[in-house]
Amino acid sequence: MLPRPLLSLLLTATLVSAQSAAPALAGFNATTAAKEFDLEKQFDGTLSRQNLDRWLKDFSSRPHHIGSPGGKIVAEKIAALLKSWGYETEIETFYPLFSTPKTRLLEMTSPERFTARLVEPPVEGDATSTQTDGLPVYNAYSTDGDVTGQLVYVNYGVPADYERLERMGIDVKGKIVIARYFGSWRGIKPKVAAEHGAIGCLIYSDPKEDGYYVGDTYPKGGFRSPFSAQRGSVLDMPVYPGDPLTPGVGATKEAKRLERKEAQTITRIPVLPISYGDAEPLLRALGGPVAPAEWRGALPITYHIGPGTATVHLKLEFDWKLTPAYDVIARMKGAERPGEWIVRGNHHDGWVFGATDPLSGTVEMLEEARGIAELTKQGWRPKRSIVFCAWDGEEPALLGSTEWAEQHASELQQHAAVYINTDSTGRGFVDIGGSHSLELFAGQAARDVQDPTYKVSALERVQAAEYARTGTKPGEFTIDPLGSGSDFTPFLQHLGIATLNFGFGGEEDYGVYHSNYDSYDHHVKFEDPDLQYALTTAQLGGRMVLRLANADVLPLRFENLSKTVAGYAKEVTKLTDEEREKTANYAALAASGALRLAADSRKTSIPAPVKPPVPFINFAPLQNALAKLQTSVDAWSKADTSSLDSARAMALDAILIKAEQSLLDERGLPSRPWFKHMLYAPGLYTGYGVKTLPGIREAIEQRNWPEAEIQIGRVANALGALAAEVDKATAATH
Amino acid sequence: MLPRPLLSLLLTATLVSAQSAAPALAGFNATTAAKEFDLEKQFDGTLSRQNLDRWLKDFSSRPHHIGSPGGKIVAEKIAALLKSWGYETEIETFYPLFSTPKTRLLEMTSPERFTARLVEPPVEGDATSTQTDGLPVYNAYSTDGDVTGQLVYVNYGVPADYERLERMGIDVKGKIVIARYFGSWRGIKPKVAAEHGAIGCLIYSDPKEDGYYVGDTYPKGGFRSPFSAQRGSVLDMPVYPGDPLTPGVGATKEAKRLERKEAQTITRIPVLPISYGDAEPLLRALGGPVAPAEWRGALPITYHIGPGTATVHLKLEFDWKLTPAYDVIARMKGAERPGEWIVRGNHHDGWVFGATDPLSGTVEMLEEARGIAELTKQGWRPKRSIVFCAWDGEEPALLGSTEWAEQHASELQQHAAVYINTDSTGRGFVDIGGSHSLELFAGQAARDVQDPTYKVSALERVQAAEYARTGTKPGEFTIDPLGSGSDFTPFLQHLGIATLNFGFGGEEDYGVYHSNYDSYDHHVKFEDPDLQYALTTAQLGGRMVLRLANADVLPLRFENLSKTVAGYAKEVTKLTDEEREKTANYAALAASGALRLAADSRKTSIPAPVKPPVPFINFAPLQNALAKLQTSVDAWSKADTSSLDSARAMALDAILIKAEQSLLDERGLPSRPWFKHMLYAPGLYTGYGVKTLPGIREAIEQRNWPEAEIQIGRVANALGALAAEVDKATAATH
Repeated sequence: MLPRPLLSLLLTATLVSAQSAAPALAGFNATTAAKEFDLEKQFDGTLSRQNLDRWLKDFSSRPHHIGSPGGKIVAEKIAALLKSWGYETEIETFYPLFSTPKTRLLEMTSPERFTARLVEPPVEGDATSTQTDGLPVYNAYSTDGDVTGQLVYVNYGVPADYERLERMGIDVKGKIVIARYFGSWRGIKPKVAAEHGAIGCLIYSDPKEDGYYVGDTYPKGGFRSPFSAQRGSVLDMPVYPGDPLTPGVGATKEAKRLERKEAQTITRIPVLPISYGDAEPLLRALGGPVAPAEWRGALPITYHIGPGTATVHLKLEFDWKLTPAYDVIARMKGAERPGEWIVRGNHHDGWVFGATDPLSGTVEMLEEARGIAELTKQGWRPKRSIVFCAWDGEEPALLGSTEWAEQHASELQQHAAVYINTDSTGRGFVDIGGSHSLELFAGQAARDVQDPTYKVSALERVQAAEYARTGTKPGEFTIDPLGSGSDFTPFLQHLGIATLNFGFGGEEDYGVYHSNYDSYDHHVKFEDPDLQYALTTAQLGGRMVLRLANADVLPLRFENLSKTVAGYAKEVTKLTDEEREKTANYAALAASGALRLAADSRKTSIPAPVKPPVPFINFAPLQNALAKLQTSVDAWSKADTSSLDSARAMALDAILIKAEQSLLDERGLPSRPWFKHMLYAPGLYTGYGVKTLPGIREAIEQRNWPEAEIQIGRVANALGALAAEVDKATAATH
Repeated sequence: MLPRPLLSLLLTATLVSAQSAAPALAGFNATTAAKEFDLEKQFDGTLSRQNLDRWLKDFSSRPHHIGSPGGKIVAEKIAALLKSWGYETEIETFYPLFSTPKTRLLEMTSPERFTARLVEPPVEGDATSTQTDGLPVYNAYSTDGDVTGQLVYVNYGVPADYERLERMGIDVKGKIVIARYFGSWRGIKPKVAAEHGAIGCLIYSDPKEDGYYVGDTYPKGGFRSPFSAQRGSVLDMPVYPGDPLTPGVGATKEAKRLERKEAQTITRIPVLPISYGDAEPLLRALGGPVAPAEWRGALPITYHIGPGTATVHLKLEFDWKLTPAYDVIARMKGAERPGEWIVRGNHHDGWVFGATDPLSGTVEMLEEARGIAELTKQGWRPKRSIVFCAWDGEEPALLGSTEWAEQHASELQQHAAVYINTDSTGRGFVDIGGSHSLELFAGQAARDVQDPTYKVSALERVQAAEYARTGTKPGEFTIDPLGSGSDFTPFLQHLGIATLNFGFGGEEDYGVYHSNYDSYDHHVKFEDPDLQYALTTAQLGGRMVLRLANADVLPLRFENLSKTVAGYAKEVTKLTDEEREKTANYAALAASGALRLAADSRKTSIPAPVKPPVPFINFAPLQNALAKLQTSVDAWSKADTSSLDSARAMALDAILIKAEQSLLDERGLPSRPWFKHMLYAPGLYTGYGVKTLPGIREAIEQRNWPEAEIQIGRVANALGALAAEVDKATAATH
């Protein structure tokens, strides 16, 4: 679902890089580590690029979105393969609400007539692009609507853009807005537009970010061509993902459902994505002031904001249906600790052919499963249980993963030690995000696979890139905190299961995201030509699963977590201080009269309102909790886990499995109780982009100071609970 | 010559803002100041917008470049007016070399045939645009040439761009380059291209900086239309401006001249400016790698670098002629101190109709002259002599001003106290640059004229804008140091006469710079609709002239100068330290091997070479000289000049007139002896953009450390000489 090249744009940088001195392999001692390395060598020997290529070509040969005949075929093929390798395999089916378009009409009625084509034409050299039975360009979970209104350009359509519009005296009430992609996850755009009174929303791909400005367009190059558009979900997933009718519970046949109109996550206004080919006549027709420099894209026009004579008519009708989602679940029972599960997942549904997204990741995960199954033929058995999951319906709303996680919540919280996710993967650099309790583990895994181009470790290569980019030699490897955009969300942010999400990328020419052209032909030309990096992804993913399954003790460590969260605490403190200073400075500027004198008298320029002063906030509970946590972690760092007997190791594992869950608060985040993790969440107004310490940070951003103090208390409690778990873990080693 | 909106982009910010407590009017005491304020009120009363409008329309009604019939008419009309108001007026004629085009051919021969049109078509609503006898689009002082070669896009064509090309493995040797305007003064582009072995150079206006990206194009809006192009000089003026055949001496009929081929300032390769309409097919045809993000403009193409199949043929032939330049010189003799001259100038030649550039400034200067003459009818006479100058041939090479300054060098150094320059002026904010000995004076002048829109002082308004932009309340008014781009250069940088250059701007829609459309119609629609700001410019210019002419003592002060230069000294020290650190860091990065691993193996990526370490430089002579200067200035600050008798005041004036000249070094700057000022010069590789402490700064930038130390010594000597002058001035007050 999330385009990998965008991931780095959305993720906030982690502040902490130092790590404590690492054992050779977290969770293993010298003897068991040596055995593990041997096993991994065997594992690598089983992997085959031919499989990746064959499956990628086959699965992407027809549309395979949720509810499609092709989707069912892909799920069944995956299940058959896993079964054939010896996994206990089932297809678990859920019935979430899904919408497909019946009517899509966009026309400009003034100053001249123009009807958007809304069709992605066939392209030479792209074999599947001639098929016409895939989903057309639309936004899933847009409401139905038939609206006519003046058009207003709102840049990325995020809250700051509407503040800017206000200062130009422009109101979108009763109007249809056109926003460009980027700047936020797409679902934020219709949400914010509706909050400001707009009656309809268009989202287009500007060539500046996603077209000829970036590079040659398909099929000459890999970038977005004039009539290609980005499908995608606009469900308000930062409130809750999954079936809009069954929040918090599995969408089984018999589940109790909301009425559609009660569903909080469906948009309030109709919304349609369009190509830049379709957007250009509309934008060219806009009157009103010239857009600010940062708002301008790469179309050969003067960007205006409107409103004016440009009037558009948007009519959308959808088929709303409970649609079967086929999750493929394949289990391999652990030999010693079958009640501890290592869960590994990637979705299998695509918007159309979905070769890169998600199949590049789906097929490499399958190859991991095959490779691991091969090892059992030589007598090896995992210590812990392994569960491979191929999710359906990720694209519309993380449907398959969320419903499964909700349906099996209590057993997962009991048994699931770690969830490892992938989605699309491409050529370039390793990119890992997740729970900081797994940071050391993640770095060791990246250290032990080889970049196929340069034959150095993936870790060394990604750190070299950071060094070259920043000029500063990086310290220990760090991972990014996770927002949303793929199936890790329910596991991490709803259930509190320690999670990693990873892939390779950064050297693709990926301009076909969520389009008809995300095809096998495009993938092997512009993404990962010989699937070398997909193979490396399989080596890395397989290693993670094997290590987690085999470790003497689960490799969850708290040193990096404690340091990272201390960094986040500094950030939110600084954010408040900066906001205080900014508010005071702006009040002085506004009072000085300078704003009026600075303005061009011929242009409307309404000064931003002066906001109330920012009070001083009590961060002490957070600071005290962090100090306590650090004390607990220091003691834990000295504990020796290298020679525990099996019973004591299992007892320790049981504590470690629960550790991440201590970071949940059952009340959830303000206005979105489904999100319970106190450290990581997607931003309510960024969508995929992560907010760390989300309750505190968003309260500060919204200037809700009493709420900020409440949230400081909750985070402090969660960190206190974690410290108690760490103390228990330390005690279990004695 | 210099487009005012660009000025702020080129000027480096001054570091110093604090000023010493100011008297009400520098150079006056309380009694004489009161009289002066009364006189200025009278002066304001004489000014008329009708005159501005009438002259602007008349002078811009036909092409009036140097050597044209229209240019002669304009000079004669100006002379007649000045004479009619009572000035002793003469037209002083020089005979510099000037080139006009005979052949202009640009065609693409491969991959397809295309011939550039090189013509600016008539435009509805622009009365003069139908005339065809103006200079077409070309670059004056391009050499003749007939070349064919592969085309390479070099971004702005500055040295850093060629370094980037090298890292992509692209060589321009034997090729024709196409550079976009901006990023440097245009003359730098063919110079650097030739230094890298290119055989021809095209310069085009990208719509990103100068076209539809900025705003609506002419005639709908004021910005550059697809087939409008920027004429302009490419003479290597940072080496020496003025006639290329007579460096350092006036180009009189009998002057000794160089052969054309000996002239160091004429380009070595042919160069032609083109419109974005003509550039688009060429750029679209380029192959090779995709241009780096910062290199991309706003044309609807993927910017490539080349080389490849795109081959162009450029043929240019010029008519090289000694061409009469008509300088109008008008004098009003001082009543008390006729040997002290206040020189005020603006050019009168335009590239075509030149309504904004230069006539907006020319006509307001004329109105100043008329207003001052009016005052004499009421019995007032200036204490000092006033000289109004309307220069010819500024556009090709500051010809009229430079030749006049060279011809009259010794009398000017003897008599000229201050030179005040304007060029085009527009709507918006006051902008003043010049000698920091005039900073206090400049701020007081800006304080005493009213912004016509807001009825607050021009000073208050420009400071409000700075406050609104930066969020920090500005301190005392500061002026920018001057590079080049208008007629102040010979006075300040060759002769060491204290100089100011000023105008209003920032609210124009100025997209017709050096085009056929710089017309009366454009000016009154998009520049300064009712000429309100031109009138304000006349109020400000007139005030400056009157104050300088009437002051008890010349208002040259050294407090701000000393602080400002101390700031520059800190900058060059920091620059060296930063370069040292950067060099060391890059050497470590290069040695680490990270650069190789960070690169995409499919793209050519040649690491920049490691440079030798940066030694520590002896800045002590500079620091000691600054300390001495500050001591002298402190004593000077305490001196009382408010009640000197006339003889002693004249004696003090004589010292002050020479003060700025103590900042000259007769050897001039390295490789360009014509430029003698040790504090200010146009950059050898920026063109118009100023370099402060140019000898030191450019030696550091070129990593010529021994030269840097030599230049430190020379600046220290100059500052020592200035300190001695300041001491003399102080002594003269006792």
